[in-house]
Amino acid sequence: MNKLLIVGTVAFDAIETPFGKTDKILGGAATYIGLSASFFNLQSAIVSVVGDDFPQEHLDLLTSKNIDISGIEIVKGGKTFFWSGLYHNDLNSRDTLITELNVLADFQPKVPQNYKDADVVMLGNLHPLVQSSVLDQMEKKPKLVVLDTMNFWMDCALPELLDVIKRVDVITINDEEARQLSGEYSLVKAANKIQEMGPKYVVIKKGEHGALLFHNREVFFAPALPLEDVFDPTGAGDTFAGGFSGFITQSENISFNNMKNAIIYGSNLASFCVEKFGTERMQTVSKAEVAIRLQQFKSLTQFDIEI
Amino acid sequence: MNKLLIVGTVAFDAIETPFGKTDKILGGAATYIGLSASFFNLQSAIVSVVGDDFPQEHLDLLTSKNIDISGIEIVKGGKTFFWSGLYHNDLNSRDTLITELNVLADFQPKVPQNYKDADVVMLGNLHPLVQSSVLDQMEKKPKLVVLDTMNFWMDCALPELLDVIKRVDVITINDEEARQLSGEYSLVKAANKIQEMGPKYVVIKKGEHGALLFHNREVFFAPALPLEDVFDPTGAGDTFAGGFSGFITQSENISFNNMKNAIIYGSNLASFCVEKFGTERMQTVSKAEVAIRLQQFKSLTQFDIEI
Repeated sequence: MNKLLIVGTVAFDAIETPFGKTDKILGGAATYIGLSASFFNLQSAIVSVVGDDFPQEHLDLLTSKNIDISGIEIVKGGKTFFWSGLYHNDLNSRDTLITELNVLADFQPKVPQNYKDADVVMLGNLHPLVQSSVLDQMEKKPKLVVLDTMNFWMDCALPELLDVIKRVDVITINDEEARQLSGEYSLVKAANKIQEMGPKYVVIKKGEHGALLFHNREVFFAPALPLEDVFDPTGAGDTFAGGFSGFITQSENISFNNMKNAIIYGSNLASFCVEKFGTERMQTVSKAEVAIRLQQFKSLTQFDIEI
Repeated sequence: MNKLLIVGTVAFDAIETPFGKTDKILGGAATYIGLSASFFNLQSAIVSVVGDDFPQEHLDLLTSKNIDISGIEIVKGGKTFFWSGLYHNDLNSRDTLITELNVLADFQPKVPQNYKDADVVMLGNLHPLVQSSVLDQMEKKPKLVVLDTMNFWMDCALPELLDVIKRVDVITINDEEARQLSGEYSLVKAANKIQEMGPKYVVIKKGEHGALLFHNREVFFAPALPLEDVFDPTGAGDTFAGGFSGFITQSENISFNNMKNAIIYGSNLASFCVEKFGTERMQTVSKAEVAIRLQQFKSLTQFDIEI
């Protein structure tokens, strides 16, 4: 089986949406990426850090999904990264109420020895120096490196971000971030400029409006599945990235055509993530459910005009 | 050839975008619908009203596209409807600067005798009583009636709007308007509620984010083509409606599967409309150009995952 190395936060989230609120529940980019990627036939490991306030049951959950957690450092006496957010009525915008970095502030990632030859590396949203440090530790060039990031690092650590962007094959980024990073309003122009920064593939995430994949002058679009109810968007982007990188890892095929399939799987898995609070839905989603939804994705966009 | 009856404004527009501004140029919903539908193999007529300030060359343009203009009333001494708008930098929002109803204020539509048996009726955005009056004049039940409307009528003439909505087969409406009309934020729920109001088919236009077609519990999505430059969005929604209704008229097939093709053609033609100011691009678009873009639409969304 191919190996997927995942770097990112493992955290506590407290979420409030128009439909309810949670106490501190399991969250973090690497958690969502790992749960999503575990859907595929692969070996995976998470590199992250938590405090000793982090419940064993959360770690056990990851282990139960065949995720290697030996790269999750547990800091004695440390407190786990905590984020709290409040979603507005349209669920498209949110306010961050609390961000406590805690053990994340001094995080020095350590890649497990048996993942220094991982086939695919998924760099979840973190400080770009942490992302770079993971790449520095690889002993074999991965077949594919995927990077997710956000506007915060563009504001606070742009030179470091540009350095790590140079080193990756695929970047996933949302539409506003693509505009900020490139200085272009048109997403086509933005994707072209970002390709010049290094990544040969640019994935622009548009939330409920789907995702675009750019490569050279080609473009592919994966819709989001129209849902009756979106309950909690937290983690949808990370679940998308986990589906994308997980499918690529399983299939060992990094062609543009196969990346189309990868972003369809990413959208597919993300459509489950938003159906319940936090990681709840991703803990139970089955292969049969994903297969049914794949048919829905096909019928959503497939047409056959005779010219 | 099948007949398409188009009702809507024929007007002057003055447009300002970040890329430039125009004097009073040819505009109006029926103009865009007519030009777009003229791409197909059909007979069409416009029912509208202008003042005698309306240049003969604009009428000649419509005639040159084989559009029957005998239903465009020319009011002696009257002034043509005039709209002026200013687009913001993102082109997704605009301010209306001037709206002069002029001859439109007392418009009594008169359907030409030889279009009272039209196969398809496209009711462009106008007062719902005008739209109803056109349906009252039909002597044969059309195979399909398509209605476009906007939030203005929901605010000012809701009972009349609901009356005409009851009588149509397809409604085209943008996402915010669908939410306003239904009281539902989820577009899936909104489309279900709007279907209960009468139309068996609900098309929700999302501008640069594409369009959704709902029928019973089925849904189809047509993306917008990602463009390097959008020059002027004026008329894109009407061009979409013209492509949709024009294709249906030509093909004589009102199945859900064929409506998928129709909204792809609508998106296709709309992608040309926005490339130049006003109707300029729609006056020259060729069958070869549309065919090339149809291939782009296919490669944009077609994928082939083996399950």
